[in-house]
Parts: sequence; C-alpha cells; structure tokens
Amino acid sequence: MQMMALAASKLAALGATVNSVNLGSHQLPDGQHLPLPPVILGELGKDPQNPTVCFYGHVDVQPARREDGWKTDPYTLTEIDGNLYGRGSTDNKGPVLAWINAVETFRALKLAIPVNFKFIIEGMEEAGSLGLEKLLEEEKQCFFSGVDFIVISDNLWLSKKKPALTYGTRGNACFFVEVEGGDKDLHSGTFGGIVHEPLMDLIALLDSLVDPTGHIQIPGIYDSVAALTEEERKLYESIEYDIEEHKNNSGVKKFLYSSKEEILLHLWRYPSLSIHGIEGAFHEPGIKTVIPAKVIGKFSIRQVPYMDLSVVKQQVEEHLKNVFSKRNSPNKLKVSMPLGAKPWVADVNDPLYKAARRAIKTVFGEDPDFIRDGSTIPIARLFQSITQKRVIMFPIGAADAGEHSQNEKISRHNYIEGTKVFAAFFLEISKLRGQLHETSSPETNN
Amino acid sequence: MQMMALAASKLAALGATVNSVNLGSHQLPDGQHLPLPPVILGELGKDPQNPTVCFYGHVDVQPARREDGWKTDPYTLTEIDGNLYGRGSTDNKGPVLAWINAVETFRALKLAIPVNFKFIIEGMEEAGSLGLEKLLEEEKQCFFSGVDFIVISDNLWLSKKKPALTYGTRGNACFFVEVEGGDKDLHSGTFGGIVHEPLMDLIALLDSLVDPTGHIQIPGIYDSVAALTEEERKLYESIEYDIEEHKNNSGVKKFLYSSKEEILLHLWRYPSLSIHGIEGAFHEPGIKTVIPAKVIGKFSIRQVPYMDLSVVKQQVEEHLKNVFSKRNSPNKLKVSMPLGAKPWVADVNDPLYKAARRAIKTVFGEDPDFIRDGSTIPIARLFQSITQKRVIMFPIGAADAGEHSQNEKISRHNYIEGTKVFAAFFLEISKLRGQLHETSSPETNN
Repeated sequence: MQMMALAASKLAALGATVNSVNLGSHQLPDGQHLPLPPVILGELGKDPQNPTVCFYGHVDVQPARREDGWKTDPYTLTEIDGNLYGRGSTDNKGPVLAWINAVETFRALKLAIPVNFKFIIEGMEEAGSLGLEKLLEEEKQCFFSGVDFIVISDNLWLSKKKPALTYGTRGNACFFVEVEGGDKDLHSGTFGGIVHEPLMDLIALLDSLVDPTGHIQIPGIYDSVAALTEEERKLYESIEYDIEEHKNNSGVKKFLYSSKEEILLHLWRYPSLSIHGIEGAFHEPGIKTVIPAKVIGKFSIRQVPYMDLSVVKQQVEEHLKNVFSKRNSPNKLKVSMPLGAKPWVADVNDPLYKAARRAIKTVFGEDPDFIRDGSTIPIARLFQSITQKRVIMFPIGAADAGEHSQNEKISRHNYIEGTKVFAAFFLEISKLRGQLHETSSPETNN
Repeated sequence: MQMMALAASKLAALGATVNSVNLGSHQLPDGQHLPLPPVILGELGKDPQNPTVCFYGHVDVQPARREDGWKTDPYTLTEIDGNLYGRGSTDNKGPVLAWINAVETFRALKLAIPVNFKFIIEGMEEAGSLGLEKLLEEEKQCFFSGVDFIVISDNLWLSKKKPALTYGTRGNACFFVEVEGGDKDLHSGTFGGIVHEPLMDLIALLDSLVDPTGHIQIPGIYDSVAALTEEERKLYESIEYDIEEHKNNSGVKKFLYSSKEEILLHLWRYPSLSIHGIEGAFHEPGIKTVIPAKVIGKFSIRQVPYMDLSVVKQQVEEHLKNVFSKRNSPNKLKVSMPLGAKPWVADVNDPLYKAARRAIKTVFGEDPDFIRDGSTIPIARLFQSITQKRVIMFPIGAADAGEHSQNEKISRHNYIEGTKVFAAFFLEISKLRGQLHETSSPETNN
C-alpha cells in the first residue's frame, strides 16, 4: 500500500481534506478473518458555483512474478523506449497519478481550479472491491451528496493510438468447482485404474462449459441477453478498429470471428466464459505421478445486460451437477461463486460524454471512439445504482498496455497526454453547470 | 544427497570398496545441461564359494512441501505412535538402511557373512533413473559379472500387516501435451469470447483420454495387452486382500470395481491412465481472470506386457492430434513422452523367490502373498534385460506407508522386522549355491 500513502500525501499537499476509512475485515472460506485495506476519501474545493467531480481509482494490482515472463521486475517502474513497464502502470496506478497531476498543474500555474474535486481511492478492486458497496451505501447521503458525476479511468482505448470513451462494461461471475476424492493425494501406480480420479471429474466438468466455437453450453445462459437492435448494430459499424493491430497487440493469430462487428459484439455485449486454471493439481515443471485428492477449477463468465447474477449462478450449478451426476462418481462436488460483479451501461448522449469528447478533441486533435469494455469495472455499475449519479469511463491507457498480463506498461506519451486531457476536461465540465443537475441517466440494466 | 554420503560412509565402515560413478549431465528441453548425481557402486566380500547378491536402492525422493498437507516437516524424520514420518522413509531410504543394517548385524555379532554383497545406489529413480541404463550397459561385463541376482526393495506389501513378494510391475509412459496460443497471457475481459483459449483446447484433449468407468479411450491401446489365462486368474483368487482396509488406507470411499479380483487385475496387469495436472495455468488460491497463453497437461499411462512404448506413444499422439483437429483451433499442439519405463514380470517358481519366502516365514511366521505392483520400478526391468540376472522385489513397507503422498512413513515394526528378514534371507540364499547359476528366468514381456 505504498501507492495508497503516496496518493494520500499528494492530495494532502494540494490542500485536500483526506480521510482514511477503515473497512473492517473479510472472512475467508476457511473462517479466517483478513483485515481489508482502507479507502481514501478526499475533498478539494467547495465552491457552490462549480460542479463537483468525483474521481475513482484503485491502487491494488493483479498478481505478477518475474518468472511469469516479465522482462523487468514487475514492481520497479522501468522505462524502455518511451514505455513505462510495471504492474499497475495502467491498471490503475498510472491514471490515478495522471488525475492528481492534472489538479496539481492548476496549482502550479496559479490558475483558479474550475471544479470541486472528490477522490475515492481503494485497494481491493482486483479482488471484487470487497467492502466498497457498504461504504457507498453509508456515504451516499454524506460524501456523495454534493457530487455531480463520477469519473473512472480504469480501462483501455480500443486502439494503440486513437482515444476512446467507454459507455458500458461486462460483469464478471467467478466460479470455483471443487471435486474432492479421498483425504490425501494418491500414487498413480498404486491407485491408477481403480479410483475415480477427482481431476478427471473436474476436467469433464470444465470441458462441458464451452464448445470449440466459443458458445457457452450452460442451458438457459443466453435467455436474458438483451436483443441486438438495428440502431445498436449501426453504432458498431462506425467504430474504427484494426483487427490485425489487435491480433498483434495480443499475440493471438486468429480470433473466433472474422468481422470487426462480430468481434466487438462478442467482446462487449454477449457473455463469454473463460477457464483460468486448477488449484490442487500438479502445476510445476517436470513430472509428479500423483492423483490429486482435491482439485478446484476456476472459471468466470463475463455477463451482460440483462443477465441476473443469481440466475446465472443457479444455471451454472444445475448444469455442473447434471454433468457430474452422469459420471456416477463417488467424489464430492462443490460449486461456489466467490465473486459476482454486474455489468454497466451509460447513455452516450449525456452532456458529460459530450464534454469529455470535446476535451479529447482539444488535446488529441480527433474525436474519440465510443466503445464498451469486455472487462469488468464493477464500481461503474455500483456507483450508478447506489449514488444515482452519472458515471463516465474515461480511459488513458492504449490497447497494448497489457493490463493483467506480463509486461504491463503505460507509454510516456499516454501518461502525459492523459494528464493534459484530464485538465482540459476540468475546463469543459466547468461549463456544464445547468445541465449536470438534471436527472441522472436511466438504469439500462438489471 | 546427504543420504548418498551416509550410505557410502556406512558401507566404507563395513570394509566395502565404494566407488562413486559420475553419470555426466542431462540436457533439459530448453537446452540447459544439468549435472546428474553420481551412482554408488559398492562391493563387500569375494568368497567364490558364496553367492553374490546385488542390492539396488535409490536415495532421491518425490517432491514434498509442508503446505501440501504434511503434519510434520517432510525432511525431518519424526516418530509419532511407532511410525517414522518423512519423505523417503519407505520410498526408498528406509529399505536401503535396513539392508545395510542387516549386513552390519553379522559384523556386530562377529558372524561370518554367508554371501558376497554388491550395492548399487542411485539418486535419479523418481525422475526415470536417467543415466542408469548406460551405466548398466557399461558395467554388465565388469561390476555385474559375478552377480547371481539382484534385490530391489522399492515397493509395498498389499496389506498393512502381511508380508509380500512382488513378481511384476507396470511400466510408466509419461506424456506432456502442450497447447500454445499467443505469446502472452490475456485478460479474460479484454479477450474472453473472441479467442480460442489454449486451456480449453487442453481440457478437451485431457477429457478425451478416459471414460467415467476408467476405460482408456485411445484407439488400439488395449490391443497388445496379454490375455488373461485361467491359471493366472486362479492366482488372484488366493491372494489375501481386504478391500475395506485398502479404502481406509487411501481415504478413497469407492473403487471403480467391487471384487478383489477385478481391483487387483486393473491395478497390476491392465493399463491405466492418470491425469496429474496442468503447468502454465492459474494454480494458486483465489481468483486470477487470466487466459493463459501456454499450458502443458501432464498425464501418464501405466502400461503392461506386451504393450510397446513406441506404439503407445504413437497411439497417444495420433489420438490427441485427431481430437485437436476437430476443434479447428489456431493454437499449436505439441505432444511429447519425456519418460517411458517398461513393465516387468518374473517367475514366482524361481528358487530365489522360494528362498525369500522361507526367510519371511522364519521372521514373520507366515507365508507371503505373491503380488504384482501397479507402480513402476523401471530398474527391475532394466536389470533383468541388460544384465540377464534374476531380479527379486522384496518389499518391507506396509500398504499404508503413503509413498509419493503426504505423511509418508515407515513403521518402527516394519523397519526392524525388515532388517531381520533381510538377514534371514542372506542365510537362505547361502544354501542355494548350485541353483543360482542356472539360466535366468525367461523374459516374459517385450
């Protein structure tokens, strides 16, 4: 939490009021209680003539180890050829610093700051923002009472060069499937051929989830997916998207779909299921002739409006139980959903989005793409539904930033122009006074 | 290799000639060369009137970490309730010490040692005895020229209490199935739904190997399995085997078969396939929403007479390529067999087995079971085919020793009575002079 302390001290140096809010502890499945990191609530400026912008960021990161394939130490920011490499450089420490730097710029140039700021910075986003929902409920009449809208900069452009504004994200329902045999690992020579291997059961369960075309095989899972309207499909046609560039960024040779529209539709507004790995099986290099006693498969479903989390959970459980029952296995099956984040969609015609578009035009000289994000920023949805405030997602990281991957980076260019675009955005929104106090955009999903 | 040094110094203290033979290095798949541990060749006694017994043992062990579920430090021998817990206590450090202790006993009691001894002790058994085959070829006319037979004590009884002699082991063909997509891991939000996930391909491949009844699905894999004769089936009927005890030892609630005969046949003389795990996928506790770029599935086939390793390799490769081709995946598939050990069978009517049986009757007061072992001791097969000497497998560990598992142990009782039975065996074989120079038992497998 070095970064948490840095953000707090920079805010304090700007003259902001900074409160560190204790979120209590979280109970793990084994009963152990782990203390949650605090959330920082900051406040700078109270001019009733100015709109009040709340910036959300997180300072926790995905796991990273040098031996995963990093070419530099993931926890030492390292510049190579104009890129700043390090875990969290884009997701999400870089954008947090860029926003604070933009505010500092007004101070350094002795300019009047044209908006009031609030800051909310947490340390549990990658683990599902544990404790945040409760805090938002508690603070919606206090900290959030004067807030006009919330800015989140926790995702990427669609391109390596062209800026974008984001109006929707998919949800994320993570599942653990545990299959347990006896109480200890067995030798494959001494027991191979006479036991129902838990790992074989698990592999059959995982293999039942998705067909080779990427279609999810869980009965009913597509029932509540919003129908695609003609107007929505048109929106996709105008988006600039270079499939080859996206392939190069990712190292992927061939996607499941060949047209731009099909790819974006399946990334943004249709659900997907990914399998992440297995806990409890042999995972090291070399050979271990073991029959693991207890294995836990990890997969997640990126769900979309109007899929309901509790229905999804039930469909997954029923499907897995059904597949398992056909195997006549004496092993024990347990299915759980340790994390469930809802999808989010905003209105691209909101004046807030138009202001951000003008700021981008000023700094980058071109209009942004209006995009959605296949990944999950649950607080976008959380902020909208709890505080009833407008939410805008305003990324500054490029498509090749490698968030959650090896060699995550932010380019020096994106970091500096990102700071400028935030400053330009402050000026644009200071002009929106009258328009911001209208009703917030309607809920477009469940 | 502390144990290697201990064994060498104990042998030297007995007056044995001890040579440490350098096996050179082994090239890993990435091109790196690793030095192999040496093999100890020891020699004690050269009386031409006495038979010469060669004892084989290994001092390397399976991986073990406290957090795998050990209740004591796996590398500190710890006695609890008459059991000696520690990695290698039964597999195979305990039996190596028991044999040396038996020889020491004759010295301590100032008795004439009735046989000549040779010792071969290696440190690579758990990794496929790399380098040993070459050494045996080189030494078959030298070190092994005067050897009458070879004793291996690297397996377990069938029961917790009743001793056994082993006349066959299964082979072990280990396979790596690698599926590689792009050159880096991807975020499941940013790519979920539009890429062919390597882990999904791998899971489909692994799921195609065995059906829920334990039957291997690889075409042709059973073609060369020796037919079961009526005489052989009869042998199984007389074996004392408590299914419930075996279940309790292993923590398994239900086996794939319900009769003693079916269980033992599938453990000893039919092939089995076990899946051990996956390298490269997320394997830690918690959640990581990653699409791994490269994953390697690990499985092994315990093969039996007369399955041919090169045919098995080809059948596995063809099957996996066939399943993979139906998925239309752009990912890259690689199949390799990093380890292939052949099965072994001996003649239970050999005078050597009869001598061992008498020694067991003397010390334990009952006849042993004549059993096979589902696991692989490749050097049994290696010694027999290269040196053309008789091989006997003479276990002293009980069925609940937990080799390759957490909390491996040898009981104080087995360790001490095992030492005694080896000493009694020396006396029995000293009577076999004339019979041991006959032709060795015929090769019963390929």
